[in-house]
Amino acid sequence: MGVVVPLDEREFQSGAGIEPLVRLTRDHMERVNALILSRVTSNVTLIPEIARHLIDSGGKRLRPMLTIAAAQMCGYEGDGHVKLAAGIEFMHTATLLHDDVVDESELRRGKSAARIVWGNQATVLVGDFLLGQAFKMMVEVGSLEALEILSSAAATIAEGEVMQLRVAKNTATTEDAYLAVIHNKTAALFSAATEVGPVLAGGDSSERAAFRSYGVNLGLAFQLIDDALDYDGDAHDLGKRVGDDFREGKITLPVVLSYRRGSDADRAFWTRVMQDGAIGDGDLQHAIALMRRHRAIEDTIARARHFGSVARDALAPFADSPHKAALLDAVDFCIGRVH
Amino acid sequence: MGVVVPLDEREFQSGAGIEPLVRLTRDHMERVNALILSRVTSNVTLIPEIARHLIDSGGKRLRPMLTIAAAQMCGYEGDGHVKLAAGIEFMHTATLLHDDVVDESELRRGKSAARIVWGNQATVLVGDFLLGQAFKMMVEVGSLEALEILSSAAATIAEGEVMQLRVAKNTATTEDAYLAVIHNKTAALFSAATEVGPVLAGGDSSERAAFRSYGVNLGLAFQLIDDALDYDGDAHDLGKRVGDDFREGKITLPVVLSYRRGSDADRAFWTRVMQDGAIGDGDLQHAIALMRRHRAIEDTIARARHFGSVARDALAPFADSPHKAALLDAVDFCIGRVH
Repeated sequence: MGVVVPLDEREFQSGAGIEPLVRLTRDHMERVNALILSRVTSNVTLIPEIARHLIDSGGKRLRPMLTIAAAQMCGYEGDGHVKLAAGIEFMHTATLLHDDVVDESELRRGKSAARIVWGNQATVLVGDFLLGQAFKMMVEVGSLEALEILSSAAATIAEGEVMQLRVAKNTATTEDAYLAVIHNKTAALFSAATEVGPVLAGGDSSERAAFRSYGVNLGLAFQLIDDALDYDGDAHDLGKRVGDDFREGKITLPVVLSYRRGSDADRAFWTRVMQDGAIGDGDLQHAIALMRRHRAIEDTIARARHFGSVARDALAPFADSPHKAALLDAVDFCIGRVH
Repeated sequence: MGVVVPLDEREFQSGAGIEPLVRLTRDHMERVNALILSRVTSNVTLIPEIARHLIDSGGKRLRPMLTIAAAQMCGYEGDGHVKLAAGIEFMHTATLLHDDVVDESELRRGKSAARIVWGNQATVLVGDFLLGQAFKMMVEVGSLEALEILSSAAATIAEGEVMQLRVAKNTATTEDAYLAVIHNKTAALFSAATEVGPVLAGGDSSERAAFRSYGVNLGLAFQLIDDALDYDGDAHDLGKRVGDDFREGKITLPVVLSYRRGSDADRAFWTRVMQDGAIGDGDLQHAIALMRRHRAIEDTIARARHFGSVARDALAPFADSPHKAALLDAVDFCIGRVH
């Protein structure tokens, strides 16, 4: 059985948006959700407690929906996509748990971060448990090709997180260096989640390349919009407070652009707040004012649109189908999260 | 190519000990070591730096040697055992990195723990990277059965670590509860490391069961001797200071036995030092004196001998061979680390 975590209704308000993807994958996603709940059980009660804290907190489950839709679009009729999708969501959840420890976050999806409730120690270890369970489920599917893609993604994600540590607090980070970080940290899992669709369906290398490209570009767009929302969103929608990245000294594209386009005085401001962490009253407002002056948020969104276009074109060669339309709409949804 | 990490010569002084295992696996272990070094490379320089800090610090590489020897003993003539062995060492290294963060350790193998040099954040993430690389290598071998065993072990290890968090500082832990912790935390990886030998060689289920049993019991014996050494060893041999478990309030079998066999006053002492963490001058000496009075260290070693005997008997049905003899000697070596 298992409780199906409801999607946040507010997510559906931007055009067709995510609704067609949700509708087409609903039956399989119910099985994914049931599988997720059945695989966080353990005699060690702390494990389901912590894992469910995050799993029940209403994430969109975008990555597993992409896997289901990609497999369906490629004509897959087996069962393996359900386990791969659940495994991908576990990988994502494990990353979030470790991220919260690394970033010393206080909130995640609008709730106290697990590390605040249970401490860093248990949070790291439950992340490890979920990674182990993810691989276990994915191995059960029996596709070595899919395993190759997903295990590579696991290493790449961690590499991206380490890159981000280095970039963090360095205001002189270039746009390219920042893109390399989010390519690994975020886009690699989107790419793996979509590529395993044609892999399961026995698709040829051009189909695989198309879905890989769709996924990676969608992931880049998704992350850039997240970055923009941190300075322009509403904490309730985002599940975190506006300015979290700012307070953590996390360099994102809006900061990179503002720093590079700013005056010497602006750059001194960015260095003080991001590098030295000396944040005072009114600094977040000043940061947002500088971003507006230098069109940094608008241009971050423009970059996201660029990657969104590449993602759409990646699927252009495929014949029209409800799944193709839903995946194209999902791009618009990811970008449309910001007005 | 690649630097072969020298085994510590002092390890060879207990009878035949580990020497036959080292000699029989030497050629393949050179390839394992080269593979390990080639797979910690990354453009992100922090990754090889942190990973090599631990990898170069002269661990015994017991687990990969077991994989190589088990595969050879079962007549395996392929190449997959080298990658599985390297992957298993990566899994172990990842666990050590996360353990150091969780335990707030200061030393590991006689060097500053990675988290002291590079911080908790990078240490957690490089552990994740190594886990990802481990799976990537293991997937390359192409044995779904081996992957099933190893991914299950990954989840079980994390489960054991979480169990240990709960047991930690609870002096009333029973011997059985403690054994369940080390079964998951330590013995599961030994068991996986040995079971994949017959799996690669196409062994039947009774061969697999024999190696699984050998590994799990060897792992239990190994951990119990480690526990005893913490109160009876020499910091130079152990790569950590005597009393580290004590200072961290980590409940191990010598404490479990001393607590259960002690007077009310003894139990009040254990509760103060382990549960409340109120450790003063002379408390470690007093703890060791209580352990001697209650034969807690001797009996921990006796328990280890018991599991060692079970491990030896697990291999009894196999025909005599140099590999079998070396694996039996390895049991004596693990136990012989303490006089």
